Amino acid sequence: MTDVERWRELGQQLRVDSVRCSAAAKSGHPTSAMSAADLMAVLVDRYLRYDFADPKSATNDRLIFSKGHASTLLYAIYRAADAITDEELLTYRKLGSRLEGHPTPVLPWVDVATGSLGQGLPIGVGMALAGKYLDRLPYRTWVLCGDSETAEGSIWEAFEHAAHYELDNLTAILDVNRLGQRGETMVGWNLDVYADRARAFGWRAIEIDGHDVEAIDRALAEALATTGRPTVVIARTIKGKGVAAVEDKNGFHGKPLEDPTQAIAELGGERHVPLEVAKPAPGSAHRFAAGPLELPRYAVGEQVATRKAYGEALAALGAARGDIVALDGEVSNSTFAEIFGKAYPDRYFEMYIAEQQLIAAAVGLQARGWKPFASTFAAFLTRAYDFVRMAAVSRATIALSGSHAGVSIGEDGPSQMGLEDLAAFRAVHGSTVLHPCDGNQTAKLVAAMADLEGISYIRTLRPDTPVIYGPDEEFEVGGSRVLRSSDEDEVTLVAAGITVHEALAAGDLLAEEEISARVIDLYSIKPLDRDTLLAATEATGRLVTVEDHWPEGGLGDAVLAAVADAEERPRVVKLAVAEMPGSAKGAELLAAAGIDAEHIAEAARRLVAVPSVTR
Amino acid sequence: MTDVERWRELGQQLRVDSVRCSAAAKSGHPTSAMSAADLMAVLVDRYLRYDFADPKSATNDRLIFSKGHASTLLYAIYRAADAITDEELLTYRKLGSRLEGHPTPVLPWVDVATGSLGQGLPIGVGMALAGKYLDRLPYRTWVLCGDSETAEGSIWEAFEHAAHYELDNLTAILDVNRLGQRGETMVGWNLDVYADRARAFGWRAIEIDGHDVEAIDRALAEALATTGRPTVVIARTIKGKGVAAVEDKNGFHGKPLEDPTQAIAELGGERHVPLEVAKPAPGSAHRFAAGPLELPRYAVGEQVATRKAYGEALAALGAARGDIVALDGEVSNSTFAEIFGKAYPDRYFEMYIAEQQLIAAAVGLQARGWKPFASTFAAFLTRAYDFVRMAAVSRATIALSGSHAGVSIGEDGPSQMGLEDLAAFRAVHGSTVLHPCDGNQTAKLVAAMADLEGISYIRTLRPDTPVIYGPDEEFEVGGSRVLRSSDEDEVTLVAAGITVHEALAAGDLLAEEEISARVIDLYSIKPLDRDTLLAATEATGRLVTVEDHWPEGGLGDAVLAAVADAEERPRVVKLAVAEMPGSAKGAELLAAAGIDAEHIAEAARRLVAVPSVTR
Repeated sequence: MTDVERWRELGQQLRVDSVRCSAAAKSGHPTSAMSAADLMAVLVDRYLRYDFADPKSATNDRLIFSKGHASTLLYAIYRAADAITDEELLTYRKLGSRLEGHPTPVLPWVDVATGSLGQGLPIGVGMALAGKYLDRLPYRTWVLCGDSETAEGSIWEAFEHAAHYELDNLTAILDVNRLGQRGETMVGWNLDVYADRARAFGWRAIEIDGHDVEAIDRALAEALATTGRPTVVIARTIKGKGVAAVEDKNGFHGKPLEDPTQAIAELGGERHVPLEVAKPAPGSAHRFAAGPLELPRYAVGEQVATRKAYGEALAALGAARGDIVALDGEVSNSTFAEIFGKAYPDRYFEMYIAEQQLIAAAVGLQARGWKPFASTFAAFLTRAYDFVRMAAVSRATIALSGSHAGVSIGEDGPSQMGLEDLAAFRAVHGSTVLHPCDGNQTAKLVAAMADLEGISYIRTLRPDTPVIYGPDEEFEVGGSRVLRSSDEDEVTLVAAGITVHEALAAGDLLAEEEISARVIDLYSIKPLDRDTLLAATEATGRLVTVEDHWPEGGLGDAVLAAVADAEERPRVVKLAVAEMPGSAKGAELLAAAGIDAEHIAEAARRLVAVPSVTR
Repeated sequence: MTDVERWRELGQQLRVDSVRCSAAAKSGHPTSAMSAADLMAVLVDRYLRYDFADPKSATNDRLIFSKGHASTLLYAIYRAADAITDEELLTYRKLGSRLEGHPTPVLPWVDVATGSLGQGLPIGVGMALAGKYLDRLPYRTWVLCGDSETAEGSIWEAFEHAAHYELDNLTAILDVNRLGQRGETMVGWNLDVYADRARAFGWRAIEIDGHDVEAIDRALAEALATTGRPTVVIARTIKGKGVAAVEDKNGFHGKPLEDPTQAIAELGGERHVPLEVAKPAPGSAHRFAAGPLELPRYAVGEQVATRKAYGEALAALGAARGDIVALDGEVSNSTFAEIFGKAYPDRYFEMYIAEQQLIAAAVGLQARGWKPFASTFAAFLTRAYDFVRMAAVSRATIALSGSHAGVSIGEDGPSQMGLEDLAAFRAVHGSTVLHPCDGNQTAKLVAAMADLEGISYIRTLRPDTPVIYGPDEEFEVGGSRVLRSSDEDEVTLVAAGITVHEALAAGDLLAEEEISARVIDLYSIKPLDRDTLLAATEATGRLVTVEDHWPEGGLGDAVLAAVADAEERPRVVKLAVAEMPGSAKGAELLAAAGIDAEHIAEAARRLVAVPSVTR
């Protein structure tokens, strides 16, 4: 069999197997797989360098299905490569199967989850950044994109950044089958439009017939030969290609074929074309030098912003560990990621004002074994919430820093204030949520983040705050600090970040009135220190939680959830930002929001005045 | 004074006033205002049609500062137009001032808040859609964009959609001052790059020197004369223009000038150039016919998906009210927004797979008095979380529908499951969060949403669920339904959506064991029915909350927050999705997540077995 004959046969096999497994599952997107089958057949047979027996190999190419709904095509490739059996292929979408509706890293050959469109390409940018600038290995990142997903702005963030970083090791294959879920795309089959856009963003663009295997072969060869910029192969394809009942017809998205037997016959029946995916040449990733960890040390009483401590601690981590990488969204002089960037420019990536690409790049970098720390304002991380959500599905380990949290930022006003970040990050599967109040605590928690699994988030403050902990104090994830307590405590004040300092001042105010208040710094909001909260409940029965955040989903709700099923539940008054803030000095806004020392003290007074029924 | 002389003088005045008010505030972004001062001087003096005395006029042009940090320039324009006094100008960023750090609708002339970059243009697309297709009035939407914010993918979503909808009533003015917050942009002063991109996206692009007022005049005239497509004026400008100490220098972003007195002198001193902004010709917006409201009616016992009921109820609203508009993100055959789209194509906008533009368009439409309902999968609304957050700062009224919530969707897997949406939407200021369990309840709540203020969100289900409420039952926002209760109730099951049906089944299971369980359908999660929860606490002392959502920030946390400071607090066991789901049948995934009837009954059994201390 000639190459051309084999590619055609393999393409048909991938279609047949997509029809078969989606028929067995009674769900799936076979028509979206069929349009790209020839593109993938040529890629995996001639161009992909991949060792299925060693998926973690440093020199493997990366293959990302940005159009994750074409999962049957990916799984059909695995079956063709004998990575999975035909029996397993037919477990598609069934309980307990690794072959989920959209690809996830439950499969060893899947680096990142896809299925939320427009994410595979920006994540591929992260992998290509790793290959070119960190690993310094010749592997390529191949990304199969759908045409519908080019409506997502994140695709254009990826185009711009890939060209800016001259990622000639990145190839996008755009499957232009014209039809989305409910109808035609805005561009249809006008391939020139995609080519013009790609070129305007600095890419090489090659237009082909996506079912002409010889044209596909030539295009992929040209992509390999292109230097200095990424390449996109823009392929005109037919959705449902090969089965007349669904070919180029609207209304068959996300549905198994009605007559799979007839369709399989029309496609020439089942076959098992011999596929030998070439293994990559051996090689190992570049490693950066590492030394001892010398975290910044701040003197008690000194004034330092936790965002500044973040930057200094991150730079210290960079010295201690060669695997630490930092990224920022064009605000590194505010988040202080610039301290790392200046110290370790080879491990710093400027992502400009493109938060989706910022998080996607971090996900791509960690898939290659790096430890990315990505930062921007807490408010602007909301721009990438879908990417964080999907990072959890990817089982990704990324560390995120959100600065300028809450009304304490002052004059810039509500658009710049992170007031929903605790709620958003608590609701990310497997996440860790930290909110330190001083420089030394921040430094210790940043160091701890480098060893955490999953999505970890640290919330930092714009204003300087007094250092209240010595530089040798240790802070565990999941821990807390009781800053003030006595046997006479009648009420407990639970705070984090800026409100710790307000709660301490409230404790002083209350002491003047002979009201003894316990003060807890709940710097670890997820996981949190339930035992300390239960001890405070037993001792005082009354809690005032105070947070520079909306009332929903933050510190207060986390405390309530922790003690919800305890034998003794405290009476809890939650102080938070209830009204839309404006612009003013931070202290004025804390007062206006009712979360400063005076308001905390007043809430405690009122709470102490009523009996606590659980006691 | 000739026009040209006046424009130059006005430009200098706008710079001087930007310097003055930021100096008084000791914060702000004067250098970002100074680059765009000449552009705005010509626009407001010759082209803008706006009646400051009647900001709600249907025929006013719209002016959006997508680069909201240039707020001093906008406020300087208001002062030049005598809309505000010089005294008020100097209250910039002070407590209680309307002149916030970034513009918000606290000011009557500001339609939408900006300050999260990349949002003004897509919102402008919404306003232009309203002007061309709904209001059918000749007003124009002018959007001042910064060059740094073109790194945001949302800008390119706006470019694509504006061209697709042939918005020749939209003009973007791109202030290419080269410098972002921390350094140069990826494109710098290569104006051709922006022009090529804009043209590739279907826009007319005009490149000019942004300080040549005659060139600005010609460009804006050409924009007015362009039909069939939007125009972008790409202006090469100098950041800090007019003050040598900061002109085109990095490191002066977001800082008042160090020597304002010298800067004002260098700019030619204070002045008050007479500015007469031309008023628009009178006119009134097109109105669509309206009839009686005839909501869909489902028979008890019938099986219907709440997403289907959403679409049918929305279409019924469309018949009853001419101001209802629907938008969807290329999944209208899944969210069932297509039912409205087919019935009222003139009031339906397809936003394709661009959720940021979807929400931004809704915000723009509501700013012109329309009532937008925007829908996509609940999971994919996370893509637009920053836009929803900012919509709240804009005091916008938009109705959002998130379908395919939770693991009950089944085979498609976690990337398609909305499992954080309740947490995210609860944490939006002033939001309403609804989660119906049957068709009739859904219809009544959709109707209620049309009269709500602020951000309202309804969460719908993929699978069919049995209709349990009659079509004549009323459901109030903030209400609940006790579906099962007796004097012997020992435990209360609190559910919403799919889990209502599981909780009812659990109630049956428990009844067989002589355990009497109260069942509450908490369809209104924010606001919620505290009285009913307190009554259940008094009666049973024990609550099991069950939700098809992550454990954080959803139904369970909402219940806990509602009773946190009550005299009697229940012992609460929270059931939610604790582990990452895979693909399987919905029922299998509900069981695997521990939120089906069996698991609810087991949790209730265990809870009943221990004494409830608050009783």
